[in-house]
Amino acid sequence: MPYVKELYTKPDDFAGKEVQVSGWIRTSRVSKSFGFIELNDGTFFKNLQVVFDDTLPNFSDVSKYHISTAITIKGDFVLTPEAKQPFELKAKEIILEGESSADYPLQKKRHTFEYLRTIAHLRPRGNTYSAVFRVRSMAAFAIHKFFQERGFVYVHTPIITGSDAEGAGEMFRVSTLDPMNPPLTEDGKIDYSKDFFGKSSNLTVSGQLNGEAYALAFRNIYTFGPTFRAENSNTARHAAEFWMIEPEIAFAELSDNMQLAEDMLKYVIRYILENAPEEMQFFNSFIDKTLLERLNFLVDSEFKKVTYTEAVELLLKSGKEFDYKVEWGTDLQTEHERYLTEEIFNMPVFVTDYPKEIKAFYMRLNDDGKTVAAMDCLVPGVGEIIGGSQREERLDVLLDRMEKLGLNEEDYWWYLELRKYGGAKHAGFGLGFERLIMYITGMTNIRDVIPFPRTPKSSDF
Amino acid sequence: MPYVKELYTKPDDFAGKEVQVSGWIRTSRVSKSFGFIELNDGTFFKNLQVVFDDTLPNFSDVSKYHISTAITIKGDFVLTPEAKQPFELKAKEIILEGESSADYPLQKKRHTFEYLRTIAHLRPRGNTYSAVFRVRSMAAFAIHKFFQERGFVYVHTPIITGSDAEGAGEMFRVSTLDPMNPPLTEDGKIDYSKDFFGKSSNLTVSGQLNGEAYALAFRNIYTFGPTFRAENSNTARHAAEFWMIEPEIAFAELSDNMQLAEDMLKYVIRYILENAPEEMQFFNSFIDKTLLERLNFLVDSEFKKVTYTEAVELLLKSGKEFDYKVEWGTDLQTEHERYLTEEIFNMPVFVTDYPKEIKAFYMRLNDDGKTVAAMDCLVPGVGEIIGGSQREERLDVLLDRMEKLGLNEEDYWWYLELRKYGGAKHAGFGLGFERLIMYITGMTNIRDVIPFPRTPKSSDF
Repeated sequence: MPYVKELYTKPDDFAGKEVQVSGWIRTSRVSKSFGFIELNDGTFFKNLQVVFDDTLPNFSDVSKYHISTAITIKGDFVLTPEAKQPFELKAKEIILEGESSADYPLQKKRHTFEYLRTIAHLRPRGNTYSAVFRVRSMAAFAIHKFFQERGFVYVHTPIITGSDAEGAGEMFRVSTLDPMNPPLTEDGKIDYSKDFFGKSSNLTVSGQLNGEAYALAFRNIYTFGPTFRAENSNTARHAAEFWMIEPEIAFAELSDNMQLAEDMLKYVIRYILENAPEEMQFFNSFIDKTLLERLNFLVDSEFKKVTYTEAVELLLKSGKEFDYKVEWGTDLQTEHERYLTEEIFNMPVFVTDYPKEIKAFYMRLNDDGKTVAAMDCLVPGVGEIIGGSQREERLDVLLDRMEKLGLNEEDYWWYLELRKYGGAKHAGFGLGFERLIMYITGMTNIRDVIPFPRTPKSSDF
Repeated sequence: MPYVKELYTKPDDFAGKEVQVSGWIRTSRVSKSFGFIELNDGTFFKNLQVVFDDTLPNFSDVSKYHISTAITIKGDFVLTPEAKQPFELKAKEIILEGESSADYPLQKKRHTFEYLRTIAHLRPRGNTYSAVFRVRSMAAFAIHKFFQERGFVYVHTPIITGSDAEGAGEMFRVSTLDPMNPPLTEDGKIDYSKDFFGKSSNLTVSGQLNGEAYALAFRNIYTFGPTFRAENSNTARHAAEFWMIEPEIAFAELSDNMQLAEDMLKYVIRYILENAPEEMQFFNSFIDKTLLERLNFLVDSEFKKVTYTEAVELLLKSGKEFDYKVEWGTDLQTEHERYLTEEIFNMPVFVTDYPKEIKAFYMRLNDDGKTVAAMDCLVPGVGEIIGGSQREERLDVLLDRMEKLGLNEEDYWWYLELRKYGGAKHAGFGLGFERLIMYITGMTNIRDVIPFPRTPKSSDF
């Protein structure tokens, strides 16, 4: 009982043999005495052509099967070198596995992505989402493979947490208290000591701080798990729930960090180009006609590197009018990032050494006292895809920085202890997995690369 | 700058050469004019022996380095076939990377697991947890490898959800409403339409229902992500946050499901035995002396199969006195499960076809009208490690069952549509990842196989 993928991968093994194949009807054409079914079994992007005729005892039933009916076919597998499709299955028996009905919402015509989001349980049965989510699966595996081949330890950092890694980002509260009658403290506040974890808890925005603890034990580690932002922003690039990859490497500096990020991106993209050629061809034909050119160029190029200070100068010199003013000391906006990577460099580029005021407390202070060893990786078409830094390993410098930012030492006791007990220099970055999938597939809305997306006012399915 | 792992894997490549190695001091012994350092760099379970003497200009400083100091050594790598260790590094230069101090909490002596949980940020630097979490990482990868090699699509099912898959299990509420002053509806209830997602939301207890939608598109899929239970049970086997693997296969029955579960368990265990021999030897010596025997036996055995009805008969016939009474129609307790797998079969065993009353609504009703096509996989030492079933694909039977259980059809509209539009027969199971790691390592408390465990009143780090 081969999969359709096997028939496409090694057709000669099955040529002339009787096989049994199960799948769903994508389309069918029926005439008086014979018919064709395009069968998809989910294992491969392409369909298997099934031919049947009125020698089947249930010919008239089969002729009426609706799109998406599940069937099993027993028949002869025949190579058809003269025809459009490389082979076909001549049915000798067709068994109904699960019927479909005339009101099946995914009829053979173009639907808008907006409509398809309302049938997220059915949309992976069509070409676009079948390709997107197979590529997503492969890309996830490629990431694991990349890190495991290099001896990195995969760490499951906690999802529920009492701390906010970045000291920023709105968070989802996690609780089992009765929302109508929460217990109160003497001074009338919510008494979180009565809550499940005995304190106020949230969904994580980053596993980085926990990841650092493990990098200082295993040297090279990575996380790959869901993270959350409760920001009420309805954009095509933001979701409330998304997956992030956060490697962390010890005895390493910013240059090692950039090399790792570049190697990883190239590895994953090469893996997809090699293992999903049908899907990538589809995206290149129907989603973004420059996709393959762009990705093939990327895997063969060396990424550019520019400091924030140089980037600001380049943007100012460009004479381009931006909506947001470019000025040393303010953060780069997406329009600036895209101009840098798309117009100035036409290439992925690392921007490094940002002013400390616009970056997180844990980033390593450079010798100039003004900038920190941060890096953002910008790619054409998306903008920032990776953000990272060397971490401040010097306890005194870190404490000084936390004090100036008003952070409470006690909240970070264990994070500070990592510096006290053999805190080697170390660095890491975060890659938003959905941004990567958008970059690889050419899809432009994050809702179309997440199986069941969670965004403001939307958590259906 | 090789990793210690490379030195152990291919020592001949480095023999007689000058190398540079970084890592942390596990122990050191110093005499008047020379000393030894056991260096661990996190890439390998074993340490590298470093020898140094007073020709080092900083000999007296190095002699005083505390445990866990981070250092880089330049020196000659020498094979020592006559000695206990296979090679050593003769230091010519030792550079301080990050100092440690005398109060380092993980001194070279036996600590209790309870104590080590209080220093979860440091415990992976010791032998036991270094082994546990490297095995955990490898096992996660082995699971991905197993499914990807078989063409399964990895699906990220949602973490935040409005539904409770099992219709059971206490859940964590996720909200951004002001807990002190939540908006109320006219009849005085919390107005969740004002909440982030526009309705009451929880953390998922299972990705199965979403997984089914994807299996009916891709045929074979799996999930691997965090799941949550807000049960206030402080046992060695329960955590509030844990990772689960949930494959789902279409055009498949219970027997296919059992075969998949058995193949997967054997694959992962074989992978660990082959790729982590040092760690497994450590567990066998210090955690569970029957571990390797048990695992080697498992990978070469065919799992047993027994129906629930037969299992009940066997338990009754055994004459063993249990705390909980054995009786057809009530669920098996852990003591019953362990007696079956440990005493009666001494082997992993699938128990199938449970009474429908004690199983979930989505399990396929057997022709006897009394039992459902469920399966639990029981293993010695742990009890239930996998639970699964064939799913009810017949819309009328499913509706009938939901009605009897008082489930609201509208809440399951999309799940029901899966049956309406080509609902092929399908099956799947859930594997608790931490239970698997406990089984593979011999560790007996779930808190010791999760990097930063979340349990009632405990979400530190």
